[in-house]
Amino acid sequence: MATAIQDTYPEEFAHCYGCGAANPDGMQLKTYLEGDETVTRHRPDPGRTGGMPGHAYGGLIASLIDCHGTGSASAFVQRERGETIGEAPPPHFVTGTLNVVYRRPTPMGVELTVRGRLKSHDGRKVVVEIELSAGDDVCASGEVIAIEIPSGR
Amino acid sequence: MATAIQDTYPEEFAHCYGCGAANPDGMQLKTYLEGDETVTRHRPDPGRTGGMPGHAYGGLIASLIDCHGTGSASAFVQRERGETIGEAPPPHFVTGTLNVVYRRPTPMGVELTVRGRLKSHDGRKVVVEIELSAGDDVCASGEVIAIEIPSGR
Repeated sequence: MATAIQDTYPEEFAHCYGCGAANPDGMQLKTYLEGDETVTRHRPDPGRTGGMPGHAYGGLIASLIDCHGTGSASAFVQRERGETIGEAPPPHFVTGTLNVVYRRPTPMGVELTVRGRLKSHDGRKVVVEIELSAGDDVCASGEVIAIEIPSGR
Repeated sequence: MATAIQDTYPEEFAHCYGCGAANPDGMQLKTYLEGDETVTRHRPDPGRTGGMPGHAYGGLIASLIDCHGTGSASAFVQRERGETIGEAPPPHFVTGTLNVVYRRPTPMGVELTVRGRLKSHDGRKVVVEIELSAGDDVCASGEVIAIEIPSGR
């Protein structure tokens, strides 16, 4: 059974509204390694519509890409270091920059799939490319530049 | 008394979780013209923390910049057309791309100020530059490329 990277974050970093396991009010996003990619799946709450009913609001799309990006950075780097998620403390990342391209309206009422690929890793800086899909439709794409916070902070 | 651009959106476009006046569950963001700028002020709900308690989550910052960006585009273009907010139907914009640079952690427990400036307007495409501050500290900056949806859609 795979372990979500967020379920291994230490308690002090587990309070994110988007993906913190210790935030009871939050979205509780979970990011898993799947082959060379990472994946987060999420069905938005009905109230999270955009300007038009029936489609998700832009900030939700951005939130999914942001949290999936930092989670993916942690998961990819932990694997690069030869460690298995859940068996060692994960590296800790924060978002440096977030870019989102809104390609088509994102429908409500379906599960959204967010996939990440490792684009580059240079020192503390990890770049993750991300696509958000509803079924076969890519609704948004983006890139997160995540910065590792040294564990001796 | 100034009118927020979102309070003039027609009902069919007023359901955004971030800024829709017709979304009772949402954040109800309000964007006003102030001189050459636009401004949205918001105090996050206590649960909207980031990884660490005491700071806002990245998706909230992105949501503020996204909704402020499209609202600013509408407000700036309406003024360019010689109209006054609230006295004519506003032009309708959607987000094409969103860029956010996270400059420092954004504190919870204080009112955040989001300011926008019109960078360019070319046909249906409006670019808005945005800064998000807590007191005197700029915590994030960003840019929204907003696309006008013709009223005869």
